[in-house]
Parts: sequence; structure tokens; C-alpha cells
Amino acid sequence: MVLIPDPLAQLKLLHTPPLLKVAVIGAGYWGPNLARNFKTSPAWELCAIVDMDVERAAKVATPLGDVPVFATLAELLAGTEVDAVAIATPARTHFAVAMAAIAAGRHVVVEKPLAATWEQGVAMLESAEASGVVLMADHTYCYTPAALKIRELIAEDALGEILFIDSVRINLGLIQPDVDVFWDLAPHDLSVIDFILPGGLRPEAVAAQGADPLGTGKACVGHLTFALPNNAMAHINVNWLSPTKIRQMVIGGSKRTLVWDDLNPQQRISVYDRGVNFEKASTSAAQRKAQAVSYRLGDTWSPALPEQEALALMVQEFADSIQQGRQSRTGGMAGLRVLSVLEAASRSLALGGEQSTVAGYDIQLEGTR
Amino acid sequence: MVLIPDPLAQLKLLHTPPLLKVAVIGAGYWGPNLARNFKTSPAWELCAIVDMDVERAAKVATPLGDVPVFATLAELLAGTEVDAVAIATPARTHFAVAMAAIAAGRHVVVEKPLAATWEQGVAMLESAEASGVVLMADHTYCYTPAALKIRELIAEDALGEILFIDSVRINLGLIQPDVDVFWDLAPHDLSVIDFILPGGLRPEAVAAQGADPLGTGKACVGHLTFALPNNAMAHINVNWLSPTKIRQMVIGGSKRTLVWDDLNPQQRISVYDRGVNFEKASTSAAQRKAQAVSYRLGDTWSPALPEQEALALMVQEFADSIQQGRQSRTGGMAGLRVLSVLEAASRSLALGGEQSTVAGYDIQLEGTR
Amino acid sequence: MVLIPDPLAQLKLLHTPPLLKVAVIGAGYWGPNLARNFKTSPAWELCAIVDMDVERAAKVATPLGDVPVFATLAELLAGTEVDAVAIATPARTHFAVAMAAIAAGRHVVVEKPLAATWEQGVAMLESAEASGVVLMADHTYCYTPAALKIRELIAEDALGEILFIDSVRINLGLIQPDVDVFWDLAPHDLSVIDFILPGGLRPEAVAAQGADPLGTGKACVGHLTFALPNNAMAHINVNWLSPTKIRQMVIGGSKRTLVWDDLNPQQRISVYDRGVNFEKASTSAAQRKAQAVSYRLGDTWSPALPEQEALALMVQEFADSIQQGRQSRTGGMAGLRVLSVLEAASRSLALGGEQSTVAGYDIQLEGTR
Amino acid sequence: MVLIPDPLAQLKLLHTPPLLKVAVIGAGYWGPNLARNFKTSPAWELCAIVDMDVERAAKVATPLGDVPVFATLAELLAGTEVDAVAIATPARTHFAVAMAAIAAGRHVVVEKPLAATWEQGVAMLESAEASGVVLMADHTYCYTPAALKIRELIAEDALGEILFIDSVRINLGLIQPDVDVFWDLAPHDLSVIDFILPGGLRPEAVAAQGADPLGTGKACVGHLTFALPNNAMAHINVNWLSPTKIRQMVIGGSKRTLVWDDLNPQQRISVYDRGVNFEKASTSAAQRKAQAVSYRLGDTWSPALPEQEALALMVQEFADSIQQGRQSRTGGMAGLRVLSVLEAASRSLALGGEQSTVAGYDIQLEGTR
Repeated sequence: MVLIPDPLAQLKLLHTPPLLKVAVIGAGYWGPNLARNFKTSPAWELCAIVDMDVERAAKVATPLGDVPVFATLAELLAGTEVDAVAIATPARTHFAVAMAAIAAGRHVVVEKPLAATWEQGVAMLESAEASGVVLMADHTYCYTPAALKIRELIAEDALGEILFIDSVRINLGLIQPDVDVFWDLAPHDLSVIDFILPGGLRPEAVAAQGADPLGTGKACVGHLTFALPNNAMAHINVNWLSPTKIRQMVIGGSKRTLVWDDLNPQQRISVYDRGVNFEKASTSAAQRKAQAVSYRLGDTWSPALPEQEALALMVQEFADSIQQGRQSRTGGMAGLRVLSVLEAASRSLALGGEQSTVAGYDIQLEGTR
Repeated sequence: MVLIPDPLAQLKLLHTPPLLKVAVIGAGYWGPNLARNFKTSPAWELCAIVDMDVERAAKVATPLGDVPVFATLAELLAGTEVDAVAIATPARTHFAVAMAAIAAGRHVVVEKPLAATWEQGVAMLESAEASGVVLMADHTYCYTPAALKIRELIAEDALGEILFIDSVRINLGLIQPDVDVFWDLAPHDLSVIDFILPGGLRPEAVAAQGADPLGTGKACVGHLTFALPNNAMAHINVNWLSPTKIRQMVIGGSKRTLVWDDLNPQQRISVYDRGVNFEKASTSAAQRKAQAVSYRLGDTWSPALPEQEALALMVQEFADSIQQGRQSRTGGMAGLRVLSVLEAASRSLALGGEQSTVAGYDIQLEGTR
Repeated sequence: MVLIPDPLAQLKLLHTPPLLKVAVIGAGYWGPNLARNFKTSPAWELCAIVDMDVERAAKVATPLGDVPVFATLAELLAGTEVDAVAIATPARTHFAVAMAAIAAGRHVVVEKPLAATWEQGVAMLESAEASGVVLMADHTYCYTPAALKIRELIAEDALGEILFIDSVRINLGLIQPDVDVFWDLAPHDLSVIDFILPGGLRPEAVAAQGADPLGTGKACVGHLTFALPNNAMAHINVNWLSPTKIRQMVIGGSKRTLVWDDLNPQQRISVYDRGVNFEKASTSAAQRKAQAVSYRLGDTWSPALPEQEALALMVQEFADSIQQGRQSRTGGMAGLRVLSVLEAASRSLALGGEQSTVAGYDIQLEGTR
Repeated sequence: MVLIPDPLAQLKLLHTPPLLKVAVIGAGYWGPNLARNFKTSPAWELCAIVDMDVERAAKVATPLGDVPVFATLAELLAGTEVDAVAIATPARTHFAVAMAAIAAGRHVVVEKPLAATWEQGVAMLESAEASGVVLMADHTYCYTPAALKIRELIAEDALGEILFIDSVRINLGLIQPDVDVFWDLAPHDLSVIDFILPGGLRPEAVAAQGADPLGTGKACVGHLTFALPNNAMAHINVNWLSPTKIRQMVIGGSKRTLVWDDLNPQQRISVYDRGVNFEKASTSAAQRKAQAVSYRLGDTWSPALPEQEALALMVQEFADSIQQGRQSRTGGMAGLRVLSVLEAASRSLALGGEQSTVAGYDIQLEGTR
């Protein structure tokens, strides 16, 4: 047998500035993905896996090179040194775990949704601000090559004015014990809309319609609509009962329309130079009638996208925002905006679909971290 | 040159009972399709094309064997003998034309929507009842092989209890001068839902969300939701601004889920034996939690469908209902139910998406014709 | 009733130069399509339908405005005046009908394949040359917007050097009484390849493999391969037994690769800026090994195509070539090249797939008409 | 930190009979996949990774729990105890490595193709027979749920008599330094055909056509055809230059036709009850003409397939065949049949596509192991 030093370790030695130390809290569905990406990131040293079920933690930790495991955050903080924690516990526990970590001066990234309520989210942001640590939302989809490309195309006005956004995320899904289909799936769509629109996600009100035809005690099928600037509208369809899987977002623009079909690896993004030309009328209905509608039936274009794992970019962004002392691209504030819409959706749902005002988005913090 | 009698005419001579005589009123977009199908039907004799623009009428009439043309219904009735008329004029004129034809004792089939308002529709039904003529709605999609098959599958309980219906009908569409996208496109979806559900289309209330981002003066993008029996829900998405064309209806059932993709001629209908098994809880939340959710991941099946033109079946059904003295499968009452939902949708849209009660469905008539 | 002159007739009156008169010979599968397009063409006057089965001819002629019908070419020539004939009779009769029409000084367009044998084709070209009439092959696919676009893209070197062509045309097909699957389907692929390549279709030899697993007496499944310039290769797959329908041609180029999927109306042509970069070695194998292979993973582009019926463009080209006294874009010579390859394919098939030399392409004619 | 024993190790302790020990030889493209599957298999203990490039071996070994690495087979055999080796080195070295392992009494599984020549394959089989060890071919695709299902459907005569097989495997591929596109890709198709046909892969002769349009020194595009029993034919298309990725096999049968689209996870297998009915004629051409052809346009059915990694089933089969002292389902003889066809294809290619006789399939061995 030949003794060989770990080549990945050698690569990490070359990294400057020094590696940041991180622990992953929660070894359920998402935690192992986070752990694997921190492990292979050139910016991070994965120092521990934390889970009340330590056997489950060990199953994640062992194949990654016998990473130490702990049962609780307190034991982690007592037992080893970390700069940051990544929280992938059930949503209802995000607040308590994050607040404890922030209080201990650790940077925090939290799986979506940021917290169980908007008030919790506000408290987390204020606390992170006060402690001078980074609070980031793990809005993974924002770091896919597709979402990054869409953000770039919208920023350079390739689509023109946004006319509508329609997002469908349906699949035979795991009916969650503690959240409905909106809270389970819509954060993906909402966080992406927040990410790609220059102004972010800021509807004044939302309307949600849902159904629970199986009698599970919560909505399994749902439709969420809200207004976008300039009389445009967004619609999100989430569904746990569909035998077919669709993950598609259509972004209609005055210049071009973009379709993101996430399940078509050969053509994830298509940009259609097709649409309706209609000069907005400024004065009267008579003038509107006089204006001719015309159609643009131009080419379709599908930009090449790099093959990259979104989560690898997310953990890199977490490291960068810490080292550069800045808000991350999907910072706590983005997480709060998603939370605001989800809460309003729940209220609308309870009221039979009535428009429900979104509580608020902007909280004033001393800094912007 | 050899003189040959018209072979189609010979075929029609063999038809028993005697051919019914029909005129098509309106030679715009839909009229020519009606005319062509009456012309080739073994049950009908196409006697005239009526349009205020007689040149337009002639363009339709000439290639069909120099069928006579008239400028108005009055001229038609004065000039030739017909048993029935098919009305394909703009929606706002349906009422006046149909009432005149009914008053003259002619059977009437009307392009969707039946009328411009529910009150007009009620008056038309009452008038047809009083005159003893058939009043039929040309809900063409109901006569497609796909819709007929779906109706049959639901009737034999192949899908189980309906859990949700989701219908998408989007395309770069002709922005209509006098109706919005709901009135233009949703009648197709609504009439099919009315046709395939054993109980027909009878929501108590509907909610509609729409947008007019181009400033055309009416909604160009819309979402319509309403409850179905047993806590199920229906959603209809109509859109004139989409560069891609989708015509798809998903019908989720407790046993199986059916997907109708009308633009996939090689597999229009797919029946998925996949879904979520969940025993409906009768008592407490605790019991619900205890109940295990399981998944069915069975086979997919795509029934063969005959190649038939829907409109040919529709004109046959019109003849049959006249000759058998019965309500047609898409009778005036079906047209009225679609109208009721459209009107409630318009009210909801005006109220910002608030649930709007559907005025009413059932009108009591002496007979059932 | 209002008397209205035929508006199409009025339109034709505006045509300059005077309309050419044409008769369609053969009222089976393809003839009615030709007749309909001549009828609606602004350049032609459809004067007669000819078929030994005069009832069948009348079925085509009557709905087109009681066009006269004849049983034979001789009766046609005796009974009415025509400038040209379009031949859509069974392939084995093309030669006799065309030669008689040419001898009578009429211009001729012939459904594919041009004739039953290469020798027949040569005689037809020589005869047309001697008589000073146009002889054209109805290679309809060449007039599709897709094929026209592909020809244009290759002409402007958008694809670079052609590396391979792969054409698949499979479907549950009508097993023909007198031809095998190569003669039935491959003329489409061959005529398009002839049309789009700047040098036309000129392989020195071809190899054909086929099978007749049902014992019909002729190949029902077939593969045809031949070399293209610069060590490229073409492959054509034809199949009458496939339950799925595919009509796809891939044209691999050194710069870009084009896929023509004729059954995808929303994206018929896709141009992939993807491929392998490999500098061709001029000297030794050692040098070849040293050269690095790299991959280009660029964008995909789908050009907008006009909606046009290919056959309408074909009949226009027939008129233009007559009036301008020139060879048509799919002239007799093109028909002859396709015939050469089909004959060589039949020989190869008989020899178990051995390469079979193509008899010859170029025949010297005084003029080039 | 809590000390936790490796839970996978605990699971393996429960395994009866005792775990087999295996080393993976070759840490390039395929070796890591083999290593990972042996590591997680309940039947195996992964004991070593062998690669001349020990750093590359370590990159594979470290994350799998610091598995020992060796530079050569000799060092492996000297340094640790193994029952079996899995060979994933370049194809030209399979023979030498396998013969050495067999001589040392180890069971051997070899990545496709079994060897570089048929003679080498024969020697390997004879040697394995003499040594009483298992020699297996890693024909991974045969262990996919799709291939297993197809084998089962054909065995129960669901497709009827096979009429044609058409397999397409094209992609922008890695141009291999030492093999052409046939040797690189066609083993997948050939091994599957061998696996699913009750009689296995036994053509008498094959014809291959290829092209090297980039001047790489070997075919990059290829078509392989051969006869199947009952006048059926098989065709395989392999291509390294295609920008689109297709992995599709169509198996036409007299009862039904099956399409395996490996890149469509939602409907990998479709079984079409569509086809041509044609009673095979026993006597004369005249009788054949008299027989009517009819079409079956029945339903389509897509069986549910389990989600399983093929390689996990392959390593299990390797263990089972060792422990049960039997030939494995893709034994050395299957590897030899694939090799026979590949060699004949190379000869045909060199002769310009001429049919080339397959050297031989059956070698007589004392036992059948």
C-alpha cells in the first residue's frame, strides 16, 4: 500500500485567505447536500455535522472523511471552533437555532424559508446586524446557471418591460407534516422572482387559492397571484398531487419572452423574439381602438449555460460575503421578502382567496450587512 | 370532356331521413369552418351563407359549389327555405340574430359564447322552449375524440374522485376588439369541464385575476379558479401574450390522473396510475398525522383515439337532436352555465379577484328541449 | 340572393403576364393537392383533371368549380388547350405520360420520382431539351420554408464544412403495391440533400441495407449510406413499420450543426453552435495525437420561418421557369440525380449491401433548359 | 464530539454469507463508479483501488473511507487479500490484467469491451474455465430497469416476432485516443441486444459504414447493420459529433413495438399496440398481392420502472454468480459475442462497408462457468 496525502486537502492548502470553518446543522434531506458542497469548496473547511439524531449525523459525516458529529449547537460551540453554521433543520426551528448562533457571533446561512414567521425573520435580521455577522438565505435556485443568466438578461433589458411571470412547480410531492404546499414549494419561485427583478419582490398584496381534496389538513394544490409593476402580474402554481413533474417559469416581456424549463437539460432557457406589439394609449379608448396590434414572429434563441452545481456557488457566495463584509446576494432581507409574501398568502388562503396586504418589506437597519 | 354528376350529391341522395337545410350566418373566422362541415355532412344541405359583407360571404360560398349568399337574416328568410341557422357572428350580436331566427321557428346553433350576458341567454332558452325549436351551443371542443374519451373515462370512474383540474390555454393570440381573454378563450375550458363532469359546471363562486400590461383596455392574461365538489379545485389559465402555444388540461383523480395535451397528436391523452394515497381522516388532527401517506407509481396508459373532426360530430349532433326532438349534448343550458361562470369571472376581475357568486344555473322550463 | 362575381377570378384577372393553363393528370393521393394549389395560384388557370377513373377525377374537379375532366391525356389534348401538365400518376407510368406531353409541346412537372429508371429519365430530359419545353421534378420538400432556409444557411457558410447528414423518415406507412420503402420515401430526403448542398447530390457509390420481415415481397425498412465530399457521410433511414412518426434531418457542420424536426411546428429548425474543434492533421499520426480536441458549447438558435405551403411555391416556380425560359430550381436534372441514387440503392440492396456505383449524373444537353 | 461507529459497516456485519473482497483496477472515468457501488453494496467489501497513477487512485479512495491504494496488480496481490477484481483500465490492457488476475485465482469483471480482440477474449474464457473463476462482462446497461423490463416483455412474447431493432446513441462525445466510435459506443447497444433477445446476439455477418470528417484518424460517425432471425434487421447509429444527445432503441415487433428513450425519465419505455398486419405469404407473389394489409392503431402503454442504479445490480450479480458457482447473466461469453461483432464491424469498415462474416461465437468449454 502506498501512503498518499489527501489531494483535496493539498488543494485547500493553496487557498488564500485562510479557510472558513463551518458546521452543518441538520442531517435530514437537505443537510447532506450542504455538507458535501462545503466539503468540496475551496473556501471552506467542513468541521462538524450536528443533529439530535447522532447516528443520522454520522451517516453523513463518515463518508466525508470522519467529520466530527455533535447532538446540539451548544455541544458544537463548546467542542470545536467554527466561523459559521448552515442551518437545515425543520423550518419551525430556524429561529431558535439561528438566534443562538448569531448570539454566539457566528455567521449564519439558513435553508428556505428563513423562519416560520415574518416577526421571527425581522428579529433575526436585527440580531445579525447588532452582532455584525452575515445572515444569508440559502435560496439555492438563485445560484443555478439559469437564474443567473435570467437576472443578467433582465438587467441588460433584453426582455423589455415585464408583462407577466408564470411559474409552475408541480410534482408528486412529499406531503410535509408541518407546512402546506405554498410554504414547501413557493419559496423557490418567490426567491427567484426576488432575485431576477431589479426591484426585487415587493407586491403590495397577494391572493392565494388552494385546495386540500385528500383531507390532509393543509393545502396540497395552490395558486398564488400578485401584481408586478406596470400592471403586470405574477402567478405561481404549486401542486403535490401531480403525476407529472413540471418546473417551468415563463417571463413575458415587451421585447422578448423567456421560458425556463428546468427539466430540459438540453434547452433550459429559450428566449422568444415573438410577441404582441401594442403602443400603449395615453388618452382615450377611441385612440386605443385605432391603434393597430401587430405581431412579432422572430427567432428563438437558447443561450448556452455552464454546467455548475448551484449549491457550490451558494457556499462560495456565503464565504465571499463574510470575507468582503457585505450583504450576500440572497441576504436575510431577501429571505424576509419571501417570508412576507408567504405569510400574506396564508392569510389570503384563510380568507378564501381575498387579496391580502403584505405586512412589510423594509426594515431599517443601521448598516446594510 | 366527360360529364359526371357530383358524387357527394349522390351520397346525400341516399340519406334518410330527408336532409335538413341550414344557413351559416357570419363569414368571418369560424363561419367558413361551419360551412365546410355542413357541406360535407350526410345529414345537412348547406343552403346559404349570410354576411353583411356579401363579398366575404361569396368567398366562402363560391368554392363550396356556388352556394347562395345573403346580406341579412331577413333576406335569407325571405329568399330561401331553411330549417336551421348556425350563428358565427360577433358575440354581442348572438342574442339579436338568435332571437329573430327562433321567432321565425328555426333551430339555432350558436358559436360560443352563447350570448353576451346571462339574461340574454335565459331569454334565448325561454324563447326556444316556447317556439319548440332546438337551441344548441357550438362547444366544439366537447366533440373532439379526446373530450369524448375523457367524459367516458370519468363516467366509468376510471379516475376516481376528482381532486383538481388545471387547464392552460395560452398562445400568441388575436387581441379581440370587444372581449377580454377570459371571454375569448375560457369558454373552451369551461364547456369541456361542463361536458366531462357528471354534475356539469356548477361552482357557487369563482375568482378571477387578470392583467392588461400592454394597456389594451382589457385583460390579456388571466387566471380563473373555482371550487369543485369534495374540496377539489379548478384553475384555468388563459393568455394572449405567450410566445409558446399550450393547450393542456390535467384532471387529477384519487385513482388516476389524466393529462390531455391537445398539441401532441401522437399522445393526446395520458392516464397516469400514479398518485398519493391518503385515507381521509374523519376525526382529529392527531389521527391525521398518524395516517401514513403512500405513493402509487404505476403505469401510464395512452388510449388510441379515432381521427375525427370535432365539428363534423357537432353538426351531426345538431341534426340528431332536431330529428329526435331532444336537447343536444351541448344544449342551450350548457351554454348558459358557461355564460354564468364568465359573468361571475368578470365581476370578480372588477373587484380585484374577490370571490364572486355565480348568478344561477337552473332555469325551469316546461319541457327540456 | 345577391349575385357576386367570384373574387378569386377577379384577382386572377389582375395577373400579368397572362395565366398559364394547366391540367393535372392523376387524381389519386397527390393529384388533388396539386389541383388545389394550381387552382389558388395567381399564375395558373386549372383547366382539367385527367384520370382513367373519371369518377375519381370528378370528385377532385367538382369542388374546385366544376373543372372539366378527361379520361386520358389524348382526350385532354384533343378537347382543351393547355400549356402544361402536372403528372401525378403511378411512378411506372411517368415516362409514357411525360413523353407524350413533351412530344405535344407541353411543359411538364412530374411527381417524384421522375421516372421508373434512369434511362427513362435521360430520355425525358433529352426529349424536353429537343422540344424546348420545361421538365421539372415536383420535389415538394425543397419548397418548404425549412429547406429554403437550410439552403440559404449552407450557401452563406453558416454551418461550415458539412461533416455528416442523417435523415430519418419513419412512420406507419402505406405499404405500396409497386415500390419498396426506398423508392417511396427516400426521394424526399435525396431531393432535399440535392437541393441544399451547393454541389448537389453526386455520390460515386451508395450502399443500401433493407429488410422485409413481414414477407411483403419488398423492403419495408431501409438504411442508405453514401459518402459526401471531404470524407463526410450521409445516412437515410426509411421505415414503414414504425409506430412513431419521425421526420428529422441532422446536418453536422464544422462550424454549427442544424437539426430540422419537421414535426415540431414550434421549432422546426435548430442551429447548434456546438461541436468538436479539431485541426485537421496534414502529416503524421503522431501529429494528430498531439493535437488537442476541444469542444464548443455555444448557444442554440432557431430561426423564424414563414408559414407557407410548399406546393404553392412549387407551382409558382413552375410558372416562373416557363415564363423566364430557364431551368427550374428542381429541374429534370435534379430528378435524374435522385433517380441515379435510387437505382444504385436497389442494386446495392440486391447485392446484400455492397457499395454500388451510381450510373451517372451529367448528361450533356445543348441548352440547359 | 460523540463517537459513532460507521452505520454502513454495521449493516454489512449483518450480511450472510461473508462479504466478498474486491479491488477496483483503474481510477479513470469508470473506476470511481465501480468503487462507489462496491463500497455501498451489502455483498462486497471494497479493499483497494489500483492505478499506476497513485494520486488518481487516492482521489477515489480517500472519500470512500481511506481505502488502500496500489500502483499495480502485483502490488495489490502481494499486499492485501481479495477474492475478485474489477478491471476498468483502457481496453487494450484488459487482456493482460485479466489474465494475470485469473492466473492468481481471482474472479474478474471487466468493463466493456471484454478485450481488444476476439482471440484475447477466447483465451480469457478458457483461462477462467481452467482456473474455475467467474469471468463477467460489465455490460452495465443490461442492468438498467428498462433493459430488464424489455428482456422480460420479449420473453413473455409481448412484442411478438421481432421485425427490426434500431438503436441510436449520439452525443458530443469524447474522441477517444485509441478506439473509434464503434468500439466506444456500440458495445452498449450490442450488449443490450444480446441480453434482450432470447437467442442472444448471433449475426452471421455485419456491415459497417463510417466517416472521419475531421481527420482524427478514426471513425467518429458510424452505422452498423446486421440481420436478425426471420428476415428482421438491426441498425445501430453511433456518433461523437452530434450536438444533441439521443439514446433511443426501437424494437419493432409483429404484435407491438417498444421504444426505449433513455433520456426521458418520465416515460423511458413506451409500448405501442400499433403496427401493420400482414399475413406472411407462403406461396406466390400473386397471393401476396391479394393479401390485404391492415393497420392496428391501438393504445400506448408505459410500464412503471423502479428507480435503481444499474451498477448496483451489476455488482450484486457478480457476487451472486460467484457464490452460486454459475455463469453471470452477462458472462464472459456475452462479452465474447459483443467482441465478435465489433471485430467484424472493423473489418467491414476497412472494406468500405462490405458484409463481413462474424468470426464465431461459441467456444466449447468443459463447464459453463
